[in-house]
Amino acid sequence: MPIVLSHPFDDDELHEECGIFGVTGVQDAANFVALGLHALQHRGQEAGGIVSYDQAAGFSEARRFGYVRDNFTKASLMETLPGSLAIGHVRYSTAGSKGTTAIRDVQPLFAEFAMGGCAIAHNGNLTNAVALREELIRHGSIFQSGSDTECIIHLMARSIQKTIPERIKDALRRVEGAFSVVAMTRSKLIGVRDALGVRPLMLGRVGETGWVLASETCALDIIGATFEREVEPGEMVICTEEGVESFFPFQRVKPRFCVFEYVYFSRPDSVIGGQSVYETRRRIGEELAKEAPVEADLVCPVPDSGTPAAIGFSQQSGIPYAMGIIRNQYMGRTFIEPTEQIRNMGVRLKLNVNRAIVQGKRVVLVDDSVVRGTTSQKIRDMIMDAGAAEVHFRIASPPTMWPCFYGVDTPDRSKLIAARMSEEEIREFIGVDSLKFVSLDGLYRACGAEEGRDPRAPRFCDACFSGEYPVRPSDMIDTGFKLKVVA
Amino acid sequence: MPIVLSHPFDDDELHEECGIFGVTGVQDAANFVALGLHALQHRGQEAGGIVSYDQAAGFSEARRFGYVRDNFTKASLMETLPGSLAIGHVRYSTAGSKGTTAIRDVQPLFAEFAMGGCAIAHNGNLTNAVALREELIRHGSIFQSGSDTECIIHLMARSIQKTIPERIKDALRRVEGAFSVVAMTRSKLIGVRDALGVRPLMLGRVGETGWVLASETCALDIIGATFEREVEPGEMVICTEEGVESFFPFQRVKPRFCVFEYVYFSRPDSVIGGQSVYETRRRIGEELAKEAPVEADLVCPVPDSGTPAAIGFSQQSGIPYAMGIIRNQYMGRTFIEPTEQIRNMGVRLKLNVNRAIVQGKRVVLVDDSVVRGTTSQKIRDMIMDAGAAEVHFRIASPPTMWPCFYGVDTPDRSKLIAARMSEEEIREFIGVDSLKFVSLDGLYRACGAEEGRDPRAPRFCDACFSGEYPVRPSDMIDTGFKLKVVA
Amino acid sequence: MPIVLSHPFDDDELHEECGIFGVTGVQDAANFVALGLHALQHRGQEAGGIVSYDQAAGFSEARRFGYVRDNFTKASLMETLPGSLAIGHVRYSTAGSKGTTAIRDVQPLFAEFAMGGCAIAHNGNLTNAVALREELIRHGSIFQSGSDTECIIHLMARSIQKTIPERIKDALRRVEGAFSVVAMTRSKLIGVRDALGVRPLMLGRVGETGWVLASETCALDIIGATFEREVEPGEMVICTEEGVESFFPFQRVKPRFCVFEYVYFSRPDSVIGGQSVYETRRRIGEELAKEAPVEADLVCPVPDSGTPAAIGFSQQSGIPYAMGIIRNQYMGRTFIEPTEQIRNMGVRLKLNVNRAIVQGKRVVLVDDSVVRGTTSQKIRDMIMDAGAAEVHFRIASPPTMWPCFYGVDTPDRSKLIAARMSEEEIREFIGVDSLKFVSLDGLYRACGAEEGRDPRAPRFCDACFSGEYPVRPSDMIDTGFKLKVVA
Amino acid sequence: MPIVLSHPFDDDELHEECGIFGVTGVQDAANFVALGLHALQHRGQEAGGIVSYDQAAGFSEARRFGYVRDNFTKASLMETLPGSLAIGHVRYSTAGSKGTTAIRDVQPLFAEFAMGGCAIAHNGNLTNAVALREELIRHGSIFQSGSDTECIIHLMARSIQKTIPERIKDALRRVEGAFSVVAMTRSKLIGVRDALGVRPLMLGRVGETGWVLASETCALDIIGATFEREVEPGEMVICTEEGVESFFPFQRVKPRFCVFEYVYFSRPDSVIGGQSVYETRRRIGEELAKEAPVEADLVCPVPDSGTPAAIGFSQQSGIPYAMGIIRNQYMGRTFIEPTEQIRNMGVRLKLNVNRAIVQGKRVVLVDDSVVRGTTSQKIRDMIMDAGAAEVHFRIASPPTMWPCFYGVDTPDRSKLIAARMSEEEIREFIGVDSLKFVSLDGLYRACGAEEGRDPRAPRFCDACFSGEYPVRPSDMIDTGFKLKVVA
Repeated sequence: MPIVLSHPFDDDELHEECGIFGVTGVQDAANFVALGLHALQHRGQEAGGIVSYDQAAGFSEARRFGYVRDNFTKASLMETLPGSLAIGHVRYSTAGSKGTTAIRDVQPLFAEFAMGGCAIAHNGNLTNAVALREELIRHGSIFQSGSDTECIIHLMARSIQKTIPERIKDALRRVEGAFSVVAMTRSKLIGVRDALGVRPLMLGRVGETGWVLASETCALDIIGATFEREVEPGEMVICTEEGVESFFPFQRVKPRFCVFEYVYFSRPDSVIGGQSVYETRRRIGEELAKEAPVEADLVCPVPDSGTPAAIGFSQQSGIPYAMGIIRNQYMGRTFIEPTEQIRNMGVRLKLNVNRAIVQGKRVVLVDDSVVRGTTSQKIRDMIMDAGAAEVHFRIASPPTMWPCFYGVDTPDRSKLIAARMSEEEIREFIGVDSLKFVSLDGLYRACGAEEGRDPRAPRFCDACFSGEYPVRPSDMIDTGFKLKVVA
Repeated sequence: MPIVLSHPFDDDELHEECGIFGVTGVQDAANFVALGLHALQHRGQEAGGIVSYDQAAGFSEARRFGYVRDNFTKASLMETLPGSLAIGHVRYSTAGSKGTTAIRDVQPLFAEFAMGGCAIAHNGNLTNAVALREELIRHGSIFQSGSDTECIIHLMARSIQKTIPERIKDALRRVEGAFSVVAMTRSKLIGVRDALGVRPLMLGRVGETGWVLASETCALDIIGATFEREVEPGEMVICTEEGVESFFPFQRVKPRFCVFEYVYFSRPDSVIGGQSVYETRRRIGEELAKEAPVEADLVCPVPDSGTPAAIGFSQQSGIPYAMGIIRNQYMGRTFIEPTEQIRNMGVRLKLNVNRAIVQGKRVVLVDDSVVRGTTSQKIRDMIMDAGAAEVHFRIASPPTMWPCFYGVDTPDRSKLIAARMSEEEIREFIGVDSLKFVSLDGLYRACGAEEGRDPRAPRFCDACFSGEYPVRPSDMIDTGFKLKVVA
Repeated sequence: MPIVLSHPFDDDELHEECGIFGVTGVQDAANFVALGLHALQHRGQEAGGIVSYDQAAGFSEARRFGYVRDNFTKASLMETLPGSLAIGHVRYSTAGSKGTTAIRDVQPLFAEFAMGGCAIAHNGNLTNAVALREELIRHGSIFQSGSDTECIIHLMARSIQKTIPERIKDALRRVEGAFSVVAMTRSKLIGVRDALGVRPLMLGRVGETGWVLASETCALDIIGATFEREVEPGEMVICTEEGVESFFPFQRVKPRFCVFEYVYFSRPDSVIGGQSVYETRRRIGEELAKEAPVEADLVCPVPDSGTPAAIGFSQQSGIPYAMGIIRNQYMGRTFIEPTEQIRNMGVRLKLNVNRAIVQGKRVVLVDDSVVRGTTSQKIRDMIMDAGAAEVHFRIASPPTMWPCFYGVDTPDRSKLIAARMSEEEIREFIGVDSLKFVSLDGLYRACGAEEGRDPRAPRFCDACFSGEYPVRPSDMIDTGFKLKVVA
Repeated sequence: MPIVLSHPFDDDELHEECGIFGVTGVQDAANFVALGLHALQHRGQEAGGIVSYDQAAGFSEARRFGYVRDNFTKASLMETLPGSLAIGHVRYSTAGSKGTTAIRDVQPLFAEFAMGGCAIAHNGNLTNAVALREELIRHGSIFQSGSDTECIIHLMARSIQKTIPERIKDALRRVEGAFSVVAMTRSKLIGVRDALGVRPLMLGRVGETGWVLASETCALDIIGATFEREVEPGEMVICTEEGVESFFPFQRVKPRFCVFEYVYFSRPDSVIGGQSVYETRRRIGEELAKEAPVEADLVCPVPDSGTPAAIGFSQQSGIPYAMGIIRNQYMGRTFIEPTEQIRNMGVRLKLNVNRAIVQGKRVVLVDDSVVRGTTSQKIRDMIMDAGAAEVHFRIASPPTMWPCFYGVDTPDRSKLIAARMSEEEIREFIGVDSLKFVSLDGLYRACGAEEGRDPRAPRFCDACFSGEYPVRPSDMIDTGFKLKVVA
């Protein structure tokens, strides 16, 4: 089965590709966006952008590589983004051309139409972007970026509708895939979720008259906004100072929210679908302890993402919880390793075993997921070097066996260890005393589906675990990718 | 009681002023130093420096503001630091002139003597530096930095001893205060601790013939070095490829290691005095739970420093442990707040309450210490806003009532809340349902002194809690500072 | 007569807006382009860009603000521009939106068409760009820059021709104004001049098989290329390794080369229309000496642009030539003046009078042109302060009375001193003993038209002096600009 | 005759090592210093520094690599340099350790003495600095820089005099060599010249009460100061708001001003020793035309330094003056050449022949000096390639045969072409039709010594031409350098 997918990044974690945020009806809206993006930084660290609108200054825009805190906090920059309406975006990387991102690929994108300007940012991935782009170029569109989002812009430019919201509807009816979108005109803040609602989008209120759209609730908290409701799957909301209008431009289907948002992507202090992300993860740990109990002295998380599940495992099993691995808080994503010597030290720059704690102990290690398995190996080595008597891996998600086409950067399928090996083979490869993944049913139970997963109508998008893709990844099929099931 | 101390930084945490590291007998020693300093970054984030020696290139030096990972990882810089012998330093800030640090204040300092070059770096604070500096200037020394360490250099320059190690002894016999020193000549790596051993200094082995000196054991772990022993209070070690020579140049006295290293400064994965720092902190939590029990639903740490004590409190009390407050991992020390609006949001940039978890619950919050009380107030506000039913603060150290003169940056005594208020007044000021500090005896017990603190011969320097200063802070006395007790 | 023109820059010199360069058939073509642009830096100092093509790497592009020497000389950058075919551009400023240039406005622009990529750069100005842009947006084009050149790109995208050269012809037939263009496909280097040939474009050979296009011959010299011929007005050349093809896609008209290129823009070591620029300027000085003789002790240039005419004036008049004003060679365009104090010193940062030389002397000062008159006033002050007995201004061009719409940045007409005052009034305003401009006939004679200017068929575009515009500035007419004469 | 001198820079020009400037009695003195240093930038382009004193802020200092205009013009920097008294320095390079300059080597140096702070900057070179440094280190001084000037500071620190001016005298009596010094205390601006007065130092007045010290008069002009007089050889002046005090601390000897300041270093608009530098250079050209006439069509300068002499040559000989070589005004000192290809193009990046002017002509080329001869060769190649019929080199200084030890960076003697070859051999090496240097007598005549050079008592230091060193270069003698004559 020849598979020809390639991805720009090849490390051992999955990465969300975006966080989005918009606000209207507040003074210095760009400052709010900066704060919201800071709270969403875990969804994308490569670059960020903000567009604002002010009646006197018109549309203003800024795009920068690097963290929000290092760019969008300088008064000199923020002063260039005046107005009471603004949207922003943080990105991880691009499926764009040539592997490296140009600053022009950084969203929000902005375009001037005959009826006025429009800025747009999206979280997700369009599965027919390649085909759309080819078609648009054939008709005279000039693409300036490698970003999917630019297809939406060009589709809008060619729409014969008279208003920007109508043109957005026109354009989004032509795209396939998973997307949550925030957009703005001179007077409107607009939010849209695809029909399945794969990516999250929250609606909040701020101050007397302000409205906020954000990928997660933690971004409402940081600006003191109150959570109003989620934008519904397939819904378009238009927020102005007069209030919120709601539209449903797409064919209605049963929603399929991304279950991996619960497992790893979202922040533990966010609430999605009425459920605390932290609490969900803690419950996954409880499910794991029930499904895969073990005799041991300590339960230790692989920090930081394994922590809530490790707490749940400890509480369910009665085995004491301990910080057996310590994370260096000064580790950035840009520790450039100068010599072969240091490169070989790998993960120890970031993590160190708390030797005095684990020595001679039987340790349960709880991690959120296993992608390639190489990190798990290194962690196992570290903890054995420190003298642990036994190591039992417990993974707070089912085996990751399939790539995501809906906005998550997954390695080539051939690199996914669970696509190639059974649970027992993985255990042997990593070299631990036992290894267990939570079951798909267990995961669903922790996420609030008491009965587990209903195979005829699963509540979530779980394609990375099940291979059942709810939206045809058209561009990929052209490259020869064989799908197990297409919904 | 008029007190006239002022400190350059005025925020609500105590800060260690330095971390030191040295290595000999390895290829590309500066790379090892960079890694060691990265592991010690929590001891100082303002700047770092490395000096190396190579027979062909002589002494090479580099000093940079900012994190180790951002500077001492670039091949272009590291190539300028060749050789098999190197030392380094990270610093928090200076007691130096004019509040801002110049790059020339960044250690290690280097000087060329008639018998060859010497680089030197120290962690601690000289309590007679002002007087020494005046005396040296009167005799024709020209000071180039605001650093205490330069006094040591000038004292060495005026010594009539023939070798650098002897000159170091001469110089260190003239200084007062707390210090751990690493120094290097063309062939020797030298480590010294003051007679009381206030600051830590560890000796390790690396490879076949290499020796390492480091402030903490976590810096040995990162380079795969093995812990040999601590440099003893009052000891000078001279490490060469032939081995380690040991000297005791100072009058011997009973050691007084800094107890705050256990409470806050050191990393939880370090071992000091044969005790795991993590485990000590966990035990402080247990002591707290015994000394100050409370009925509650959840035990939550103020992250990250309160975490081990919160785990201990939970284990002792049986109250479930939970991450009720989430720390934004992308928070740097340089989040410049652009507007009044944002400035007022304060601590929420860094911390967010996990609203869904704490709502309606009686919460025990465990923090490592209370300095000014302002952060505690903000955390209390956050957690009450999130709907907690009750808030009980438990502090894993006794009230911080006195400034440190031995290398820790403490605010003016008038700013220390515990110097002005009783425990009950602090509780009222912060506005919580209950508030308790661990007792000094409880702290000593957690640190391994089963019998608690022996008031006639305390095992640790605890001046910040007790006001009993084991070394006369001469310079401070001249400014009118009244001491409670001078050892 | 209400005139509503505004220009982004308001200083007292005219500025060429661009220099262009292209080369094919040489190894590391981008290096040649960097050198060529360095030689053309006087035509634009704000920013520069290079696009290259290599079969393996495809199209590569780099755009930078600042001097060529500071950017396009770093091996690390130049290595990213491989291939044997490359074009480049230096720009002064943009007539673009909002006064400040974005990096995306920096040429060459690049677009991917169905039949392959094309990069394009132009020198000149399109006089119907505003109207074209509106029309293109109405039909769904999305503009990404404020650059005129982007109109050409979108016109090409909408052409139904099958090859890029044909699409370029299609597009250029739709634009009005003055332009010299260099463009490139994967295999062709293309050059075009508008029908009047307002802006220069030179064709040269380099090595065995290489071809070069450049704004001026000085850019051929720097790479050791030999001058072949000028691209003719209205000609398109297509250079490949097989040779040069020539086309004439536009209606043929009598050429009107910009006379100001001789007066000021071009470098003195360039040859245009078979005439040495230096020699032409020297002859303008001779004409001036004949038309406006004066008794004096010294002839001094206003450096550096007045130098050749001053030499000619001295040679014709017999009055000794001297460097009475010295230019500070370390003056950049970015001397930011820190205080009111220094701002008032103005021109002295750049120029200083050679006091010992001019004291007590009757001085003839020769300058290339007078735009607003403010600089002339300051120079007059300087030279009088230094004790000159008399000051006689001689200007090596006729009065500049009309704005340029063909690629030169001219101030608002109301700011042009010669549009508001007679020669005598200007003399009084500046405050000198005498002031004379060369006549338009004298200028034509120096440029090789022995008989002077033929009013029925002038050989040059001299609209800035005569107000006779050979191409309708359509966009300007819409703003209410009244033309004296439209050809 | 083995000679073992080495110099850090190896190119084909001589370089002055410094320019100095000081001012007192004006508001925002540092702004004046910035302007003065900008005017003196030709004396040193590597780095610059300013120290200012303000009663409230104390001493402030800033040092930067790069041009004055790029650093000391930013309001943000200049605001950190308050006060009405300031001094500054620009440097070319250092005779310092290891070839590369550290920022700490950049003057003015500053030191805190028991009686207050003192900043000091000097132009020149101490010929016994190596010996002094060794002696000072033996007595406990710690050197922080590679700068000669630090010897002066340490000598001052060890003086038992009570005031800083007296300590400066003490220190300067111990040093040998050539120096002009500006220094400042909290209230005094101090200037000193060595007994021979080798380097220039000018005194001026500014405003009602202000005093200025500057290397050249052009730096007085830029701030609108009036020239008062030169500081005399061997004089110390102390300027305060009360006026100027004068002292003569050294043994009086006959002055020997550096003749090369006239030939090349000083700016043409400066006046030294009552003589215009421009006029002196023009007269050297006249002398050359008398001493070495030739039949030719054009006299062309090698720009820019050969220009005044070329004008003089033309005026004396009647041969027309022309700009046959054009200098690229955008050439910086930092054009990094990316490829072998470009490296071989060498001088053409900076200079281009005005081909149309020189073709078929017999050209006299006038240059200021010949150091290694390699540049002359390249210029000859350029001008022959352009088709000149004959090339006659005329050099406006005698053959440069000996290194300078008084503050000018000269290459190793073995690299000086005139130390190895006769005039005829040089002509052949360069490959021109004729080549003549002006005679030493001719040079003296142009400099105002009507009778030429008096060999028993030469008026100038001309060691670079004559090998007669007026001050023993002690440090050099120790390295084995054989002197022809020591005065």
